[in-house]
Amino acid sequence: MTQDVTNRDHALALDEQDPLRELRDEFVIDSPDVIYLDGNSLGRLPQATRRRLDQVIGEEWGRDLITSWERWIDRPYQVGDLIAEHLLGARPGEVVVSDSTSVNLYKLASAALDARPGRRAIVTDDDNFPTDRYILQGIAAQRGLELRVLASDPIHGPSPADVAAVLDSDVALVCFSHVAYRSGALLDMAAITRLAHDAGALMLWDLCHSAGSVPVRLEACGVDLAVGCTYKYLNAGPGAPAFLYVRRELQDRLRSPIWGWFGQRDQFAMGLEYDPVPGVGRFQVGTPPILGVSAVEEGVRLLARAGIDQLRAKGVALTDYLIRLADAWLAPLGFEVATPRDPQRRGSHVSLAHPEAYRICRAWIERYRVIPDFRAPDRLRIGPAPIYTRFVEVYDALDRLRRLVENKEYAEYDATPARVT
Amino acid sequence: MTQDVTNRDHALALDEQDPLRELRDEFVIDSPDVIYLDGNSLGRLPQATRRRLDQVIGEEWGRDLITSWERWIDRPYQVGDLIAEHLLGARPGEVVVSDSTSVNLYKLASAALDARPGRRAIVTDDDNFPTDRYILQGIAAQRGLELRVLASDPIHGPSPADVAAVLDSDVALVCFSHVAYRSGALLDMAAITRLAHDAGALMLWDLCHSAGSVPVRLEACGVDLAVGCTYKYLNAGPGAPAFLYVRRELQDRLRSPIWGWFGQRDQFAMGLEYDPVPGVGRFQVGTPPILGVSAVEEGVRLLARAGIDQLRAKGVALTDYLIRLADAWLAPLGFEVATPRDPQRRGSHVSLAHPEAYRICRAWIERYRVIPDFRAPDRLRIGPAPIYTRFVEVYDALDRLRRLVENKEYAEYDATPARVT
Repeated sequence: MTQDVTNRDHALALDEQDPLRELRDEFVIDSPDVIYLDGNSLGRLPQATRRRLDQVIGEEWGRDLITSWERWIDRPYQVGDLIAEHLLGARPGEVVVSDSTSVNLYKLASAALDARPGRRAIVTDDDNFPTDRYILQGIAAQRGLELRVLASDPIHGPSPADVAAVLDSDVALVCFSHVAYRSGALLDMAAITRLAHDAGALMLWDLCHSAGSVPVRLEACGVDLAVGCTYKYLNAGPGAPAFLYVRRELQDRLRSPIWGWFGQRDQFAMGLEYDPVPGVGRFQVGTPPILGVSAVEEGVRLLARAGIDQLRAKGVALTDYLIRLADAWLAPLGFEVATPRDPQRRGSHVSLAHPEAYRICRAWIERYRVIPDFRAPDRLRIGPAPIYTRFVEVYDALDRLRRLVENKEYAEYDATPARVT
Repeated sequence: MTQDVTNRDHALALDEQDPLRELRDEFVIDSPDVIYLDGNSLGRLPQATRRRLDQVIGEEWGRDLITSWERWIDRPYQVGDLIAEHLLGARPGEVVVSDSTSVNLYKLASAALDARPGRRAIVTDDDNFPTDRYILQGIAAQRGLELRVLASDPIHGPSPADVAAVLDSDVALVCFSHVAYRSGALLDMAAITRLAHDAGALMLWDLCHSAGSVPVRLEACGVDLAVGCTYKYLNAGPGAPAFLYVRRELQDRLRSPIWGWFGQRDQFAMGLEYDPVPGVGRFQVGTPPILGVSAVEEGVRLLARAGIDQLRAKGVALTDYLIRLADAWLAPLGFEVATPRDPQRRGSHVSLAHPEAYRICRAWIERYRVIPDFRAPDRLRIGPAPIYTRFVEVYDALDRLRRLVENKEYAEYDATPARVT
């Protein structure tokens, strides 16, 4: 095996040695000429999910109709337990599949603030995912609280020291993304959670970019609250329902602001007074989306087969390889690696900054069939998904990118994003 | 054609004359021996939806991956417009598909209260659907408001006079179900909305049991706000996303309590400050569930083919027929019709009260393959869906029910519901 990373044989050798290489066949790959590097935005369709959805649609819904609710009613909990066990380092009964990440964040942040009456501040950072910031802004505005937004390092995100500097006895809630959506920075969950607790605050983690790509240790870190999505590394499909986690010891002390009937004790008695179930189920609201919940189950089972430690090892290897190629080929073309170089400090995606990132992104997609993501203002975000991305895809994608930029093939594209909506 | 309703030929003749009879073939009916009378809880699977979901899963997600967001991003609005036009009597841009009914009710009720500062009361009724009552209880508790819960007539629901009696200048919001989930009572939307407005309050209707079964005239009635689900008469599948309506003139004055990124102007700029889009889209929150939204589209297209006025006419005929058979066969066995007899005052389902309703329900399902719903404490709820239920199914179902009760075949079943969860 050659040690020259810029030789394609090196990539082929890495694929050959990859213990997860056969899992790629578990996914629908109908356009083999496309190199898909956006699994951290929308994961691929597993074959098993296609079969499962066909069965849920045709048999559970189409044939068995309302009687399927006997099976469906516990599914958000069952799938929550799977996520807890295989991906989050959490205990049974601590995770439930429900709503969207944004709605879950709203519910948990509101509940946390109610549990810290008198405290007037929420802490987050300016590189936290937009919806997290907006949700917290809305809650702060409604309650007249102070939102302390750390100006975080754009590559490494907030360090424990940065966080410590804004914590005091007025802080009720601390909320960060475990892996930053843009830079890929992986925060120190244990240290930051400890700091929040030392200040008497509750800690809420957004796991959207870490669940399924890096091991999460919610119990070991003593995390209070967490939310995350399932359409990225969990491969559950566009807009599949999110999950939420509430530490067991806190559950019965917290109450959702949205008192829905799926959180009601003895739900079908349809009693007059709201009386929330014990446990994490009180954070359910309306009728759970069964197709989506079932897709989450299949996605998690596939990740469980791979094993989160294997996925993490491959994620580190893929991003390491990507960064080496970027250093060799792209740095001379004006690209900068905008993701931590220390693998212990990053998740499974890499951002490259370039002043022409938007046009380059368009050209990469349209001329070379490579699909990354653009993130404002100047980032190419490249997310090789450990469960199905090959090293040779990373090689070929960056090779095409180099050619494209060398030849300025992006010049014909608009320099600024059109509005998507 | 015989005029004797208790003669099965009468049912067959009604089916023969039914202008919607061919639409039944548009649904998956894999167990023809089952008589399904719970379409008002979970509608059947349309053939077109099965095909469409297969395409959305395999092609849009599996093959086209993230690039499909160009198509998906507007789908919640497009399907909202379809619902508005064909089912709700609302204008384009007034309806969007989003979240669950419960979450939508929370968003709209909260926004309404913010728009009526200083007013301290919310009005609803004790037979409103449980989640509506719980959501409003939660909001009232959080804000220290008074929840005025009308003790409504269990068959006819609150009349305009009942509502007028509790309205005053302290009421910010009035919220009822257009068709009551249990009795099937259809409220006078125009009159009650007018009363709410006369008192200076905003009016929020829950359309879960009316959308797709009775014509709704939101614009003509000057309704401010509405929510509704899609897994009943819209046949969009278990836990499919709900819709919400905000009257055009109000949209830019109202703000969701949940500031999600799908309600953000220039969403993918991912700017620091929340700045909601103009229009109904500001009530979107997280990433919309695309499978569910697509299923809603197919369900609505099918209802549009039938036409809401035709559906209503058949709904009246089916429930009328059902009530006549109940009078002839079931009244002597201790059943009471617990639904308005005046077709102008009911939706498309009928409740029959019987002290042994729970056991009868179990026996009807297990021994006779008829699927109704049980609703606490003593109701059999029977929902013939105009788009696919045949008159002869109503005949056969009630014929079996009569036999079952005459022979006390329910005696071996438990008299009280086991907890479903």
